[in-house]
Amino acid sequence: VPGDSLSYPEDLCPPDNFNMVSTWIYRSSFPKKKNFSFLKKLGLKSILTLILEDYPDQNMKFLKENNVTLFQFGIAGNKEPFVQIPDDKISAALAVLLDRRNHPILIHCNKGKHRTGCLIGCLRKLQQWSHTSIFDEYRRFSHPKSRSMDQQFIELFDGREAWKVIDPKWI
Amino acid sequence: VPGDSLSYPEDLCPPDNFNMVSTWIYRSSFPKKKNFSFLKKLGLKSILTLILEDYPDQNMKFLKENNVTLFQFGIAGNKEPFVQIPDDKISAALAVLLDRRNHPILIHCNKGKHRTGCLIGCLRKLQQWSHTSIFDEYRRFSHPKSRSMDQQFIELFDGREAWKVIDPKWI
Repeated sequence: VPGDSLSYPEDLCPPDNFNMVSTWIYRSSFPKKKNFSFLKKLGLKSILTLILEDYPDQNMKFLKENNVTLFQFGIAGNKEPFVQIPDDKISAALAVLLDRRNHPILIHCNKGKHRTGCLIGCLRKLQQWSHTSIFDEYRRFSHPKSRSMDQQFIELFDGREAWKVIDPKWI
Repeated sequence: VPGDSLSYPEDLCPPDNFNMVSTWIYRSSFPKKKNFSFLKKLGLKSILTLILEDYPDQNMKFLKENNVTLFQFGIAGNKEPFVQIPDDKISAALAVLLDRRNHPILIHCNKGKHRTGCLIGCLRKLQQWSHTSIFDEYRRFSHPKSRSMDQQFIELFDGREAWKVIDPKWI
């Protein structure tokens, strides 16, 4: 009986800023050990991380034990005037993201606010969302640290470049 | 070619506060006419509304044209000291929500903040989320008008009562 599970002592803790983005696509902040039992329930096939650093041992162990493939597209945050998110890396990440062979997939950076928010924003462009709706979503997850540079990146991102590296066969 | 669709003049406008909650479960504010082309893409089978008022003609027409079933569990907002959300209505709504015969399903109230947030919070309890994670999500969508009465309602809601009216066969 499903109700019986309510008497279990341990609650499930999604990572901060966890959310479902589309069917079989999730987003979150960096997953910690206490989030692993929740993540197991998602039955993830892949994780796409945008961090630059090496993946920690404890997370590598989780991947191995649960047969999860790691895709790493390391990018630096979008802090003017020194850093710019590279369009081609975002396009390559979108190609991985939309490929149903990688689903279910979790996207994360560190806080799940800025780099993840930019990638999701670009995904929404491919889904033809209006900029108003895209920015509303970006801000909902980056609050109270929304960056206008991120929103400008999303606005200027050319979806046609991404479609060039996406194989429609696997969408 | 999917990229070709980018040249369409009309962008898709999800309703304000739109989000995917779980596979085949969506949430939003009250859908207006400009949101209908977006909603069509979701292939909705049902809409669950928490508003008290009659559904407007233009929305009824959308339902009819797209073969969408309407479930109405009208409740008043949770504004102390006069109003309290009735537990049994939330349980009945959860039973509709979890029944896969109704999927894909969209939940909405007026702003998609408070009543919808309470219902989703109770759903998360059935999914065994920790209260911290449930409240984070509640506040993300009710910001900047989060109500502590809503969070208290979610905390006190007894999932076992809901399981009594949910038929596990259709989950």
